[in-house]
Amino acid sequence: MKIKEKRIYLDYAAATPIDKGVSSLMKKAEDSLWANPSSLHEEGEKAKDVLEKARKEIAYILHCRSEEVYFTSGGTESANIAIQGILKAHKNAHVICSSFEHPAVLETVKNSGAEISLIYPDERGIVNPKSIEKEIKENTVLVCLMHANNEIGTIQPVREVSRIIKDFRLRKCVEDDHLHISSPYLFVDACQSVLYEDVSIERLGTDILMIDGIKMYGPRGAGVLVIKHGVKIDPIIFGGGQEKGLRPGTENAISALGLSEALKIASSFRESESERLTELRDYAIDKILSQIPGSSINGDQENRLPNNVNICFKNIDSEFLVIKLDTLGFSISAASACNSLKLENSSYVISSIGKPECASSSLRFTFGRETKKSDVGKLVRTLKNILL
Amino acid sequence: MKIKEKRIYLDYAAATPIDKGVSSLMKKAEDSLWANPSSLHEEGEKAKDVLEKARKEIAYILHCRSEEVYFTSGGTESANIAIQGILKAHKNAHVICSSFEHPAVLETVKNSGAEISLIYPDERGIVNPKSIEKEIKENTVLVCLMHANNEIGTIQPVREVSRIIKDFRLRKCVEDDHLHISSPYLFVDACQSVLYEDVSIERLGTDILMIDGIKMYGPRGAGVLVIKHGVKIDPIIFGGGQEKGLRPGTENAISALGLSEALKIASSFRESESERLTELRDYAIDKILSQIPGSSINGDQENRLPNNVNICFKNIDSEFLVIKLDTLGFSISAASACNSLKLENSSYVISSIGKPECASSSLRFTFGRETKKSDVGKLVRTLKNILL
Repeated sequence: MKIKEKRIYLDYAAATPIDKGVSSLMKKAEDSLWANPSSLHEEGEKAKDVLEKARKEIAYILHCRSEEVYFTSGGTESANIAIQGILKAHKNAHVICSSFEHPAVLETVKNSGAEISLIYPDERGIVNPKSIEKEIKENTVLVCLMHANNEIGTIQPVREVSRIIKDFRLRKCVEDDHLHISSPYLFVDACQSVLYEDVSIERLGTDILMIDGIKMYGPRGAGVLVIKHGVKIDPIIFGGGQEKGLRPGTENAISALGLSEALKIASSFRESESERLTELRDYAIDKILSQIPGSSINGDQENRLPNNVNICFKNIDSEFLVIKLDTLGFSISAASACNSLKLENSSYVISSIGKPECASSSLRFTFGRETKKSDVGKLVRTLKNILL
Repeated sequence: MKIKEKRIYLDYAAATPIDKGVSSLMKKAEDSLWANPSSLHEEGEKAKDVLEKARKEIAYILHCRSEEVYFTSGGTESANIAIQGILKAHKNAHVICSSFEHPAVLETVKNSGAEISLIYPDERGIVNPKSIEKEIKENTVLVCLMHANNEIGTIQPVREVSRIIKDFRLRKCVEDDHLHISSPYLFVDACQSVLYEDVSIERLGTDILMIDGIKMYGPRGAGVLVIKHGVKIDPIIFGGGQEKGLRPGTENAISALGLSEALKIASSFRESESERLTELRDYAIDKILSQIPGSSINGDQENRLPNNVNICFKNIDSEFLVIKLDTLGFSISAASACNSLKLENSSYVISSIGKPECASSSLRFTFGRETKKSDVGKLVRTLKNILL
C-alpha cells in the first residue's frame, strides 16, 4: 500500500491553523466562561473578568490603553466599524487610501461616499510617503495604509506616514489634547504583519490598528480593533451597547482569551520565526528565479514579510497552476482568497505595482510554522516539472 | 470541610452553555477545517463543503432555501445587516416595530432615520395584530415583531401579522413573483423561541428571521440570518464579498457546523423539553405567586415560552434581589443582560406592558436543560427567606 504523502500547505496568509495551546486554553474555558459577560451574577462576572484581563494583556503588547482595545468578529468588521464610523462622524470627508489595501478596507472606503485619493505603490510594491503627503488637505479625515500587503507582503512606511500626518496636524494648529486627536487619522491594517513585525501602536504612530485571529494562529471569527482615545467616531452597528457602543452584541470572553494568548505567543516567537522564515523565503525566491526562466518576483525582496513569496510566471495562467499544484499536494493561492469569490482571475494588487501582464500569472506562496526547507525544495522541483 | 453547594443557573435567556456534542464536534473539526473556505485548494474546498452542508441542513430545518441562509457573527449583526440593509435599499421608508423588541432590533430601527411607528403590546405582553394592521401604509417597508420576548417570554402572533402583511401586498396589486417580494417585509427575531417553538419560515410566514448560537446551546459569536429570495436589500458591510456580499469576512466553517448541529439537537428535543419546562415554569409561577404576597407575573402565563418566569416583587429593588440571590448561589437577571451595560435598573419591556411600577422590581428566571424541580423549590424557599 502506498502511504499517502502529507500535503504541503503554503497559504498561511489566507488562514493559519489554530495554535494547540490557544485551542486547549479556549476549550478548557468553555465550561466556566460561557455565561454572558454583561450578566450581573457570578458566572457573568467571571466571564467579564476574563474579557477585561484579555483586553489589558492585548493593550500591554500593543502599547495602548485597554480602553482603546475593542473586540470584533474579525478584520472585515473592524475595518467597517472604524472607517464607516469615522466618516460618519465627519462631514465632507476626504480619504487617502493606498490602491492595494485589502478589500475589507478598499471596498469600505469606495462605498463610503467620501472623496477619495487612491495612492499607487511604486514598482517595488511600496507606497512613497511623499505621494501621501501631497494629497493631505484640510478635510482629509483618514489615511489608510496597510502595514504589509496581503498578496505581495511588502512592508509599508507606516512610521514615516505617521510623522507626516502628525506634522500636518501641528501645522493645522489643532494640537492633540487629552480629549481629542485632530484628523487626519492613520488607519493601519496589521493583519498580515502581526506575526513578524513589531505592531506597537506607539512605534507605528497609528491612531487605528487592526489584527485578526485567523491570521495569527488564533481563534476564528475574532479580531482586535484599536482606536486611540480621542478619535471622533460614531457607531454604525446598534444594539445592547457592548464595547462602548461601537461593537454591540454579546461579548465573547473565550475568543478574547484566545486572541490574547495567540498574540502573546506571536510576540514571543516573532524574532526567531522571522529569522527562520526570512532564510526560507530567500532560499525559495533564489531557487525559483534561478531555475525557472521567465519567472520574476512581485514586490521588493528586502522590505517584505519573512513568509511571503509572490512570483510571476510569465504567460502562465495562475488558476491553472493553483489547481495543478493542488492535485500534486500543494496548497497555495493566486492573489487573495477573497478574489476567488468574485471569479476574478486577476490581481488588482499586482496591477497596482505596474505589472498588469503578471496580474493573472502570479502565485502567492506564504509560509508558516510548519514550513520546512524540504517543503520548499519539493515545491521548486514540482514547479520545474510543471513548467519546464 | 463544608462541601460547596452547586450554584443554580437560571439565566438561560442571557446565555446557554454550549452542548457537549456540539463542542466536541467543533473541536474535532479544528484539525481539518481551519482553512479559508474561499481558498481554491483541497483544504479550502473541504472547509467550503462543510460550510455549504451546514447551510443546507439549517435551510432544511427552517424550511427555506439554502441560498436564503446567511452566516453572521450573531443576533446583533444579523439585525443590523437585515434592517439597515433593507432600509438602505428603500427610500422614504416607514418601519413598524414593536416597542419591546430586543435592543439589537429596536436601537437599529431608531437609529435608521426611517419614519417609525412603535406598537405597544397589551398588558399581557402581546401585540395585537390589528394595531399593526392599522399602521401599515404605502411606504411601509418593514414590520419587526419578535417571536417571543426576551424578558417576559410572551409569544407574539407572528402568523397573523404575516397574513395581514400578505393581504396588504396583494391589495397593493404587486404580487410576489419569482424575482421580488413586495414590501412590507416581516422581520422575526426568533433568538429566544428557537429552542421551544417551531420557527419554520413557512409556518411563520416571515421574510426575514434570525437565530443565535449562544441562545441555543451552540457556538458563541455565531448566528443565522434568513432572508427570503427576492427581498430588496443592500449591503452595509464591505469587503471580500463572502455570503453573497451581505456578510463579508472569512467564513467560519467550524461555527457553521456547530450552528447546524445545535439546531438539529434543538429540533429533536423541542417537544420534550417544552413539555418538561412548561410544567416547571407553571410550578414556579404558582409557588411564587401563592407564597410571596405582593408578587405578580409579568406577561401572559399561557402564551409564553416554557422556560420563562418573570415576576414583579412589589416595592423591591430588582438589583438588590439579583445581587442577594447571587450571593446565595442563584444566577438570574433583572431585565436583559444588555440593560446592565447602560446602568439602567429599569426595564423598558415591563414599562411597555403598562406596569411602570414593576420596571425596577422584576426578576427574570429562565430555565434550561439543567434546571430541575428541586432547583425551583430551592429558589422559592430562598425568595421567601429574603422577602418575608
